[in-house]
Amino acid sequence: MEQPGCDPVDYARRLEKAVRSPKGFRFFSDTVTFIPDERPGSDPLTMRVNGFISDGEETYAVGALTQNRFPGAPIRLARERLPAGQIRGCVVNNRVANVAAPGGYEDAVRLATAFADRFSLESETVLSVSTGVIGWRLPVAAMLESVATLPDHGCSPLGFAQGIMTTDRYPKIASKPIFDGKETDDAPILLGVAKGAGMVEPHLATMLAFFLTDAVIAPEKMKRIFDNVVANTFNSISVDSDQSTSDMVLLVANGASRREVSEEAFERALSATAERLVDGIVRNGEGTAHVIAVTVTGVGDTELAREIGKHIVNSPLVKTAVYGNDPNVGRILAATGDALDHLDPDGAINVERLRIKLFGREVYRDGAFRLDGELERALSQSFHDAAMVPTLRGCPQHEKVVDITLDFGFPGGGARVLGSDLSYEYVRENADYRS
Amino acid sequence: MEQPGCDPVDYARRLEKAVRSPKGFRFFSDTVTFIPDERPGSDPLTMRVNGFISDGEETYAVGALTQNRFPGAPIRLARERLPAGQIRGCVVNNRVANVAAPGGYEDAVRLATAFADRFSLESETVLSVSTGVIGWRLPVAAMLESVATLPDHGCSPLGFAQGIMTTDRYPKIASKPIFDGKETDDAPILLGVAKGAGMVEPHLATMLAFFLTDAVIAPEKMKRIFDNVVANTFNSISVDSDQSTSDMVLLVANGASRREVSEEAFERALSATAERLVDGIVRNGEGTAHVIAVTVTGVGDTELAREIGKHIVNSPLVKTAVYGNDPNVGRILAATGDALDHLDPDGAINVERLRIKLFGREVYRDGAFRLDGELERALSQSFHDAAMVPTLRGCPQHEKVVDITLDFGFPGGGARVLGSDLSYEYVRENADYRS
Repeated sequence: MEQPGCDPVDYARRLEKAVRSPKGFRFFSDTVTFIPDERPGSDPLTMRVNGFISDGEETYAVGALTQNRFPGAPIRLARERLPAGQIRGCVVNNRVANVAAPGGYEDAVRLATAFADRFSLESETVLSVSTGVIGWRLPVAAMLESVATLPDHGCSPLGFAQGIMTTDRYPKIASKPIFDGKETDDAPILLGVAKGAGMVEPHLATMLAFFLTDAVIAPEKMKRIFDNVVANTFNSISVDSDQSTSDMVLLVANGASRREVSEEAFERALSATAERLVDGIVRNGEGTAHVIAVTVTGVGDTELAREIGKHIVNSPLVKTAVYGNDPNVGRILAATGDALDHLDPDGAINVERLRIKLFGREVYRDGAFRLDGELERALSQSFHDAAMVPTLRGCPQHEKVVDITLDFGFPGGGARVLGSDLSYEYVRENADYRS
Repeated sequence: MEQPGCDPVDYARRLEKAVRSPKGFRFFSDTVTFIPDERPGSDPLTMRVNGFISDGEETYAVGALTQNRFPGAPIRLARERLPAGQIRGCVVNNRVANVAAPGGYEDAVRLATAFADRFSLESETVLSVSTGVIGWRLPVAAMLESVATLPDHGCSPLGFAQGIMTTDRYPKIASKPIFDGKETDDAPILLGVAKGAGMVEPHLATMLAFFLTDAVIAPEKMKRIFDNVVANTFNSISVDSDQSTSDMVLLVANGASRREVSEEAFERALSATAERLVDGIVRNGEGTAHVIAVTVTGVGDTELAREIGKHIVNSPLVKTAVYGNDPNVGRILAATGDALDHLDPDGAINVERLRIKLFGREVYRDGAFRLDGELERALSQSFHDAAMVPTLRGCPQHEKVVDITLDFGFPGGGARVLGSDLSYEYVRENADYRS
């Protein structure tokens, strides 16, 4: 879907054409203007008030919520309402995160109720979801007015994907037909939409993702598959190290296609869609000049492999070297050695057999570097080829990653983790916003 | 000792005058030039070959070594020789770290033996210590020649402190008389010298510190005090998150003053000296524009308080906000919430009572922000006042820190952690070096 050149209008047109919506869902996106209570006298700001609903009565939802100990009010509300599985709609705003603001929980409830009333849903089946500035109150009056006057049919899924963006450089949306056996035109659809730019905007530290499907699938199977896919995708990316106060991933199934799908087909579609969104979240981070993919194998434990990978992609020294197109094996080795001290305190992992490859070429084996001038030059060129211009907006520039693999030489226990480099633009975005 | 203005010559003169050397130690510093085997045809590089020895037969040493799982050859040698406590000298080079280089261990042994031979010491009482590029071999021939021709008396302690520098912006050295009861002119001396610029130079990721004293103190007391002080100082700083492949802190006592000192007096002197060096290591990091001090109290456990503090000073979002002189309470809160999810999985810490202060002024209490425009402006000014020019070399510009305190409202369990902000200069130093 992506190609170099980055024509945002063409990209949106192609997305609009390529993305299919599951049956029985509607999407909304409106704009309100407000002056924050916390900034009296300031210029008015604009906020997008977005939403989706399922028309099916049999709708069932599962989700994953941030475990940050200072969650926003929307997360507190979701912790109450999500366990029952009876979620049929979400009202989603950007600009103000509703975290650590007085009366935030009550505001979230009022918004959810208003959205439910507008579409004749039970109040408890709606979530209020917010991302944006921490510490500010939502402009509830303006938002309630917007919600009350939403049209019956609002916008396309792409309109919703565009509406929930904050500093995202382009909308993240993907859909897959769920083919079970043979490929048919009327197969159930899985649609995924995500917001997130690697937590790089000041205060706007959030990743949101919504998966919607009209497939018929049993709740307990759906939950198991969802947890597995989230672990391998959303929980395998790391841009700023910290999980935010508002992270949320939701999967809503309404059965409107009346087609039951196998677990395998459903997992395949969910995996593919989630991988696409997750790549987009890392790739479109403001300040991201390279996407880094660290694959760790041969440690005998998937979760351990993932944690080692995360430690490496979070190392500032590795991140800056990647930004500088530098095949710096020493930093990868140092970060790995530090990771093992924390994650493998008993020394169960034998480091003697470690092999490291960059872009598929071996750079470390038998405890020593395998680099010469020619290989360093070739690798440096690969880094350059995988680079992006971090300030270009509108669409992805390519799909390349900086490919780092570590094989500890034992069977099993592999994981792949995505992260981003550390660039001037990252510092600018994160340091200059308010000063 | 420090003052604004930063006149390096005057600073060195004042250090030379202020620093006192313990009896019975000698210091050396020589320069060699070499062309790395790994870079045939490149311009010659210079390396400093430095050392110190104790003339006392009763010398005893304790130390702390990196727990990185890919340690350099010097660390492997130190792990063998340090436990016996019989260390009387070190040969210390910069420029090449002797990590992951073929034959590195044998090279380290040869250097230690040559240094021991030159000063008629037992070979096993000498350590070889290296910092610099990972993956390169030491230029052993040139180094052996240098070591064999070292003069009987080499240089002052300051000369040694200058010789072990890499990207350090200024030498880090401090001494304290160990006063036990009354202050006398002939009190034993504790001298500390450190190298380290926050692991910010490509490949040169190392912190080294040497403490030398002529006090008489029992080995077991010395060990206990050393471990305690290291935990509160060297293990309470974090600049790049990762411990390096070569970190080492050493304390050598030779009893040459023939004065026994109390544990309290010794700990006081060691603490004060270590705190001074640790501040210098963070403050003189290339790219450091602010030193951040996070104090965490009221969690009932010192180690937990320290880990929470480290998580906050390592958060890229907190670090960039500090660089931007932004009193961004939301990011501190988000990083704290993520830290607690990892460090307090059972939820033992009650977050309801958390109070956050910036520069002593309350910004968060009872689950909500306490900020208004006036306070934000005042805090932003305090951030500006605590800023340094990251490119100025030669001496510290001031001793100010960005003071962040979190009080969870329970008795006990306090720790203070130092870190640095994340600046353009950090990225430049770490990304541009080889590209």
